[in-house]
Amino acid sequence: MAQAPKVSVIPLGGLGEIGKNMTVIENQGEILVIDAGVMFPEDEMPGVDLVIPDISYLVERKDRVRAIVLTHGHEDHIGALPYVLRQLPVPVYGTRLTLGLVESKLEEHHLLGETRLREVQAGESRTIGRFEVEFIHVNHSIADDVALAIHTGAGTILYVTDFKFDQTPIDGRVTDLQKLAELGRKGVLLLMADSTNAERPGYTLSERVVGQTLMEVFAGAPGRILVATFASNIHRIQQVVDAADRYGRRLAVVGRSMVNVVGIASRLGYLSVPDGMQVPVEEIGRYKPQELVILSTGSQGEPMSALSRMAAQEHRNVAILPGDTVIISANPIPGNERVVGKVINRLLHLGAEVIHSPFSGIHASGHASQEELKLLLNLVRPRFFVPIHGEYRMLVAHKRLALAVGIPEGHVELAEIGDRLELTPDSLRKTERVPSGQVLVDGLGVGDVGHVVLRDRRLLSQDGILVVVVTVDKRTGQLVAGPEVVSRGFVYMRESEALMEDARLQVRRALERRVPDGLSDWQSIKSEVKEILSRYLFERTRRRPMVLPIVVEV
Amino acid sequence: MAQAPKVSVIPLGGLGEIGKNMTVIENQGEILVIDAGVMFPEDEMPGVDLVIPDISYLVERKDRVRAIVLTHGHEDHIGALPYVLRQLPVPVYGTRLTLGLVESKLEEHHLLGETRLREVQAGESRTIGRFEVEFIHVNHSIADDVALAIHTGAGTILYVTDFKFDQTPIDGRVTDLQKLAELGRKGVLLLMADSTNAERPGYTLSERVVGQTLMEVFAGAPGRILVATFASNIHRIQQVVDAADRYGRRLAVVGRSMVNVVGIASRLGYLSVPDGMQVPVEEIGRYKPQELVILSTGSQGEPMSALSRMAAQEHRNVAILPGDTVIISANPIPGNERVVGKVINRLLHLGAEVIHSPFSGIHASGHASQEELKLLLNLVRPRFFVPIHGEYRMLVAHKRLALAVGIPEGHVELAEIGDRLELTPDSLRKTERVPSGQVLVDGLGVGDVGHVVLRDRRLLSQDGILVVVVTVDKRTGQLVAGPEVVSRGFVYMRESEALMEDARLQVRRALERRVPDGLSDWQSIKSEVKEILSRYLFERTRRRPMVLPIVVEV
Repeated sequence: MAQAPKVSVIPLGGLGEIGKNMTVIENQGEILVIDAGVMFPEDEMPGVDLVIPDISYLVERKDRVRAIVLTHGHEDHIGALPYVLRQLPVPVYGTRLTLGLVESKLEEHHLLGETRLREVQAGESRTIGRFEVEFIHVNHSIADDVALAIHTGAGTILYVTDFKFDQTPIDGRVTDLQKLAELGRKGVLLLMADSTNAERPGYTLSERVVGQTLMEVFAGAPGRILVATFASNIHRIQQVVDAADRYGRRLAVVGRSMVNVVGIASRLGYLSVPDGMQVPVEEIGRYKPQELVILSTGSQGEPMSALSRMAAQEHRNVAILPGDTVIISANPIPGNERVVGKVINRLLHLGAEVIHSPFSGIHASGHASQEELKLLLNLVRPRFFVPIHGEYRMLVAHKRLALAVGIPEGHVELAEIGDRLELTPDSLRKTERVPSGQVLVDGLGVGDVGHVVLRDRRLLSQDGILVVVVTVDKRTGQLVAGPEVVSRGFVYMRESEALMEDARLQVRRALERRVPDGLSDWQSIKSEVKEILSRYLFERTRRRPMVLPIVVEV
Repeated sequence: MAQAPKVSVIPLGGLGEIGKNMTVIENQGEILVIDAGVMFPEDEMPGVDLVIPDISYLVERKDRVRAIVLTHGHEDHIGALPYVLRQLPVPVYGTRLTLGLVESKLEEHHLLGETRLREVQAGESRTIGRFEVEFIHVNHSIADDVALAIHTGAGTILYVTDFKFDQTPIDGRVTDLQKLAELGRKGVLLLMADSTNAERPGYTLSERVVGQTLMEVFAGAPGRILVATFASNIHRIQQVVDAADRYGRRLAVVGRSMVNVVGIASRLGYLSVPDGMQVPVEEIGRYKPQELVILSTGSQGEPMSALSRMAAQEHRNVAILPGDTVIISANPIPGNERVVGKVINRLLHLGAEVIHSPFSGIHASGHASQEELKLLLNLVRPRFFVPIHGEYRMLVAHKRLALAVGIPEGHVELAEIGDRLELTPDSLRKTERVPSGQVLVDGLGVGDVGHVVLRDRRLLSQDGILVVVVTVDKRTGQLVAGPEVVSRGFVYMRESEALMEDARLQVRRALERRVPDGLSDWQSIKSEVKEILSRYLFERTRRRPMVLPIVVEV
């Protein structure tokens, strides 16, 4: 009772990885969850649609979870909500635009009716159970992003999600420097802050610079202009609209998420498109090329996106023409360079001019670079610091920045997901590990694709599969038919009939040798068939297809 | 007879792509082949080991091919040799280091004895059939690289493969500016030149800068130093050796290709390692950390490479220790960013310091940037220009540079592989298309993995496979046993027994409905099983595994 108040922080996602951001704060037995994001699957997860955080820790403490508080509307912060809310139907707090995007997502999942959404504004404070939460405006590549100051008995936790200091933001609303400074003056116990760009020296470009570049490109473009960017980057889209307005062009919007976000943002007042500017994409044929801007998804080269389909000449409404200027206003996310490159090659082939990064000023990151991160640390002067949102290398880089501005080594903690960080007014320490990790979503299945399934998919993709069906008489133990050998993804059968026939004979001979003993021991038949075939095929082809023996008793 | 002499150039690889470089020159019925490179498979080619050029055009004209001339020893210029030589056993020309690397490759393929290797030196000329070929020294990220001046009846073709202008190369041998200028003065009919860095402004860093950076890092490293770089970058390796020598460290070499190349380059005099410096990696335990440098493969994060295995704590001889400094002296090739990032994260986790690009000066590209490409164009002042070695976007960028220095639009040709470019003393034109493309190598199979197999592998990797075995009595047409349903890579069977049992019942019911008609029409049984199961599984799981029905008659 006379004990110092204890507060715990448990990251469940977003540390040691990019994406699926989720952090748990515990205060006097109550739990507050920050964000519920997805991660996009890595190459080693073929067929997987999404990765979400393992929330079994929360599900076991269901009745103690007070709310999920969202910082902004990016998928890596809200994308797991439909899955999380099914197991934890708690209220969701967020700013207007964030909730606008959440609504459309919940509607798709038939969860909108039953979810309690609580709108907040930057500058406000809310009492949520035993948590006092302040919402603080920060700049990012989506509007209405907030940092959170969570006042607990132990002290203030300042959670600065994805952010940057944009001194000239499009909507004129600079990151709330005053509030951050005030919190710093009053004393912040723990700062957690975005590490995405912690390896990047200097300052991140202002979003406004991109607008200037757009104006220059618009001024010189002889025909149609196509702009591909992230659908959620509403300030970028506003700048495209402004450039279109200045140069008297109509705007057509293509791509499901772009149409969706432009609709939501316009309705909620975050995007202002002059009356009569927007035209249906089906009607672009009515306008001259120099009267048109087409705003599109696909800046990451996603194979099914509008821009990729245009580049492949497969888009229903838009055919790329010589004289078109295509602006790819985004940097390829690591891993996407090749697909983006392919789209650029195709667009050039069709005669378009393509403007893309690193062409200077055509994209600005949404994340603070090193000088900004140091500025934040100096504004806030926290007692303890935990870098979040980033791979390990970025967290390490962020830690170095903290040390550089004078935070003592022992006050910076490199945490991992699942670490319980216990806070008192004058200490921060890791106490235990709680369950955490990745849950894979594939189609309707959540968590049913695991290790074994992924390993099999990877194996199958390497050299394909050979199925061997052995039919055995259950009374006599004699081989009745076959064996049948069928392959997929191994060799093209018609060209390799001899090889497959040889494989069949190998199996047949081996089985015949066993016949005296009978063929009743399935397990050992299977392993023998597997071994013989694998060895034979490797010798002949130097490939290792999966061999799947099936024994049928008749 | 009084006709103007006609010469053809046919690129068979390396245009519109990175890798598998190969160009055919035809002069009075004789054929000269430049390079025979491989390309590494793209993501859409699972299981494929290598991609080589389609050489059916050459094989059909076998008796007219006089030689293969190699420019340098990189895999994308020599890697396809073993496959090409089996079909075209012609003499191979190359510089000493290039042939050294080729020898070790041919030995592996048991082709060394039967191949006629002809060593040449930069500065020399050789008459090969009706071709007069001059070998011209150029700088690159491997030693002993040569451009080729091929003198034909129509005029001189200058083939400038991968190159840069390094004003301060490690071996003191600058790209042969005088020779290039002399050729330019005498008149070059056609220039073909490397476009890899044509999108990159400015000048490429000198290799010597990397040496200075290495010295700085060596000066400050408290413990062991590990350097990962391309095995073939002998000048880089020399600089590592020099730094080791300066700071009194021993050198251990790990990774098959690194050991191989260090051996070849030392033997041929391209690499000079002080006596007693090199120690076997098994003995590194005898030395203090600050007395050691470990030179390793794995700068691209290749999963089986030495560095990746060290990072995963799976290397037999080297365990990463806190205090180690790991230098990754290479840029990730587009597409490799994520795997390289993963290696860096792991190394940091193990307590190592990691120095990698974009840390400035730790790597220098081997390819000329825009200012160098313009310099080459101005030195040579060719009548016609064809950019080579690069994706379409790079060829386009290179074309723009040519226009910028004043080559007329009609004199620059953006060619594709398979284009026949016909040259006369005053014209260049595309006349026809010859067979060209990709041949996939998978294990021992060359060309047997095609469209269908790759499509199946991709399908298999997405949602796995479901095999359904239906056993039918061949006299009565009745279902005898099963159906058996087995899946791989779809769902984890133990957790989804009910789903699989339901799937089995669906098939059984459908087959029973058909029994009145008998089950003798295999094809239609198969398509029905496929359709029923695919639909059922998609409804239940939103996944589309490959369904493979097998009918066994007993």
